[in-house]
Amino acid sequence: MSERANWVVRLLGPRRSSPAVPAPDAVLAELGLSPREVVVPPAAVHVPVVRAGAFVFTSGQLPIRAGELIATGRLGETLGVADGQACAQWCVLNALSAIRSEIGDLGQVKRVVKVVVYVASGALFTDQALVADGASELLGRAFGSAGRHARSTVGVSALPLDAPVEVDLVVEI
Amino acid sequence: MSERANWVVRLLGPRRSSPAVPAPDAVLAELGLSPREVVVPPAAVHVPVVRAGAFVFTSGQLPIRAGELIATGRLGETLGVADGQACAQWCVLNALSAIRSEIGDLGQVKRVVKVVVYVASGALFTDQALVADGASELLGRAFGSAGRHARSTVGVSALPLDAPVEVDLVVEI
Amino acid sequence: MSERANWVVRLLGPRRSSPAVPAPDAVLAELGLSPREVVVPPAAVHVPVVRAGAFVFTSGQLPIRAGELIATGRLGETLGVADGQACAQWCVLNALSAIRSEIGDLGQVKRVVKVVVYVASGALFTDQALVADGASELLGRAFGSAGRHARSTVGVSALPLDAPVEVDLVVEI
Repeated sequence: MSERANWVVRLLGPRRSSPAVPAPDAVLAELGLSPREVVVPPAAVHVPVVRAGAFVFTSGQLPIRAGELIATGRLGETLGVADGQACAQWCVLNALSAIRSEIGDLGQVKRVVKVVVYVASGALFTDQALVADGASELLGRAFGSAGRHARSTVGVSALPLDAPVEVDLVVEI
Repeated sequence: MSERANWVVRLLGPRRSSPAVPAPDAVLAELGLSPREVVVPPAAVHVPVVRAGAFVFTSGQLPIRAGELIATGRLGETLGVADGQACAQWCVLNALSAIRSEIGDLGQVKRVVKVVVYVASGALFTDQALVADGASELLGRAFGSAGRHARSTVGVSALPLDAPVEVDLVVEI
Repeated sequence: MSERANWVVRLLGPRRSSPAVPAPDAVLAELGLSPREVVVPPAAVHVPVVRAGAFVFTSGQLPIRAGELIATGRLGETLGVADGQACAQWCVLNALSAIRSEIGDLGQVKRVVKVVVYVASGALFTDQALVADGASELLGRAFGSAGRHARSTVGVSALPLDAPVEVDLVVEI
């Protein structure tokens, strides 16, 4: 786990009991993502995000920062819960960056609807929900009550590129 | 597997060739869930259900009854197909309870659209579809033709809290 | 892996830099699926496809041709990437066949919105994205720019019937 990943965990800090609700873009900026940075480059057929009606669906996002996975491996083997939470946060940051590249302004997000968190898990690891809390908490920080979402969290045997976590979002705009 | 879980399996009984279609709430009551019982308590950021447009998305539901998992472990290891089916049914009951808490009356469900069934599976277990039939059959019982749904069933290495099954629903209202 | 599966890979050929966009049904015909063939028979409660508003959701589709899985097992164990790509293509063909049986004409698909590719994966296999490219490329071939989709790709421990790949689609019509 790199220092950068732990830095995100530290920056987010403990959950506040009565969180302020800054503009989503401000939260991203605070986390070191410039408003025009596109983290996930568009590919030929498989694209980071699709808008359909009032919904935006993202591709499954990996914990990539500056073009590199911040960690590889499985939870419960080489990685612990805090590592997984940092990964989940970076997945969400990349998902939000992709959504922003489609809709221009995250303030247009009316509601975060659904989040699926896939956690690469060793045989005995059952704290997938704690890992997923890294994603959920960041969405709450960024969107306030509009960030309250339905979530599915599952443990899987492996993810692309040996990523520890993958997250996809459905948001309503 | 507790007696309570087997009780659900017995109560549902064999599939009828021409099933009657009772009101969904009546089916839940028959299964021992009172109409106002909220099985899944709302959390801070991650909530049991989100309504967006004409759709309601649930969080992934675990086979929890009265605050406890009715079973833990993987199919094909300590659990068999009937155990998994009972778990799938409780997941659906919790999902329906969550939807009811949002929309007030399950009779407002126009269509069960999509069901994803995650089955914690040992290395040699490939009967995930039979496990998922526990979920599908209950939806058919509760909603009749409106309960006919698209379904994805996958075997995963682990689920939160060592739950054997997790189910999420998308319904149209 | 059967010869039939490899035949699909050969037929699709390498990605063209500036692909033509034939009518989706023509692509299916070219791949040996007659326009009225329904690959996936409807079941009692769990159906191949559900239309809801402007969306069509498919069930998770397996790589079945003429009633049989074209392969079984896990990627990275008995199967390689090319095998997995052929499986992913047959999953998509079955999904498109199911959608066509619902909407009558694949030309009504306005956009392929979301694709989830589940890859049954051995412990050391991390090329799930290459397997999923088999699905994505076929969607690009069939739909052109309307086939550009958001995609989640995950490695799972097992799939129903020991299938190597499962794919579900959400399309907008």
